[in-house]
Amino acid sequence: MRSRMSEPVITTLRAVPPFARGVVRDLRVRWALEEAGRSYRVKLIDHAETKQQPYLDDQPFGQVPFYEEPGIRIFETGAILLHIASGSPGLLPSDPQARIDAISWIFAGLNSLEPTIQSLMNADIFFRKKEWAQLSREDTEQMAKDRLERLATALGDKDYLTGSFTAGDLMVATVLRILRHTDLVTSHPVLGPYLARCEARPAFCRAVDAQMELYAQD
Amino acid sequence: MRSRMSEPVITTLRAVPPFARGVVRDLRVRWALEEAGRSYRVKLIDHAETKQQPYLDDQPFGQVPFYEEPGIRIFETGAILLHIASGSPGLLPSDPQARIDAISWIFAGLNSLEPTIQSLMNADIFFRKKEWAQLSREDTEQMAKDRLERLATALGDKDYLTGSFTAGDLMVATVLRILRHTDLVTSHPVLGPYLARCEARPAFCRAVDAQMELYAQD
Repeated sequence: MRSRMSEPVITTLRAVPPFARGVVRDLRVRWALEEAGRSYRVKLIDHAETKQQPYLDDQPFGQVPFYEEPGIRIFETGAILLHIASGSPGLLPSDPQARIDAISWIFAGLNSLEPTIQSLMNADIFFRKKEWAQLSREDTEQMAKDRLERLATALGDKDYLTGSFTAGDLMVATVLRILRHTDLVTSHPVLGPYLARCEARPAFCRAVDAQMELYAQD
Repeated sequence: MRSRMSEPVITTLRAVPPFARGVVRDLRVRWALEEAGRSYRVKLIDHAETKQQPYLDDQPFGQVPFYEEPGIRIFETGAILLHIASGSPGLLPSDPQARIDAISWIFAGLNSLEPTIQSLMNADIFFRKKEWAQLSREDTEQMAKDRLERLATALGDKDYLTGSFTAGDLMVATVLRILRHTDLVTSHPVLGPYLARCEARPAFCRAVDAQMELYAQD
């Protein structure tokens, strides 16, 4: 029996505003560990602490999650996901081309999809009271829609981006969830069912339930 | 002697507007291959072709570069860089913690730094004629500056982010170069010298010269 001391520890926020519940980035790490069949512990931190030393020594941008396991400490969700997936054939296949395709989709989620989606989130949530945010919305939405259409074309009629589920789908699905305040994904004939398929996975359900349960305690 | 057929092939744009010369994303791949001491070939593609089949089958977002070597085809610059770096101790150290730190900085460059920097680029270049772009500039610049200050704090008085040069520095430096139409990096007391240090590396000089030479032929 492995002791609890050997379990990974995810540091995440003790409390978040309602719009963030269910999309805090630790979801990616919880989900990956659930897919890999690994248990984990959670360490909670106040928002103010994330913007100060000593947390900034661990996570230079003051973000969550931060990840620790014996001998390894990791900041940046993409790197954490890649690390967990590297040891789990259910998240990264062993065939070299299939493996690099899944890794490419992790990067695509973070760099080709999330920035335009986050810009829409900035306009709609963080800067919603600013005139520029309202004026920019049409252009910002169009940029996001263009990327979503590219994603839908790449997915085609497959269940998952590279055929079977990988860490690439995990990343892309959590990026798509950021748009849940719109119907851009849910009403899309290809992406809506794709996201629903990812969210129906038992490992996802356990992960999101754990996050929602934490924030329901407020 | 290895035949030229075994060399990696980078697909990139045949022509780009002046503001993009020296920051086209193939620079990251050229630089990584130069640091690894590997020769490569370049395959040129017209901009219009990148937005059509069959290129979209290879690169779902119609971006450059695309990367091929015998047995492996890769889209997404981050995945290409990680692949090249994995076989090069000068780009990814073998010590597990140092290695994961360097990988984290690749992801940080692409997801914690580039999105705010790209938003400023969108406001200043791509949407500069829109009223919202001008109105948003102060907020957009502040978001970028906040991330740059976090980066500067993480760098501190070290030469490179994890001590010695890695693929993480390569990625972060190419992200900082996107801001060359401003003085946000060049006038910064920590980041200015850091970027200059990265750009003084012989491998960088060979890579950027090769890109500039290509576009000087217009």
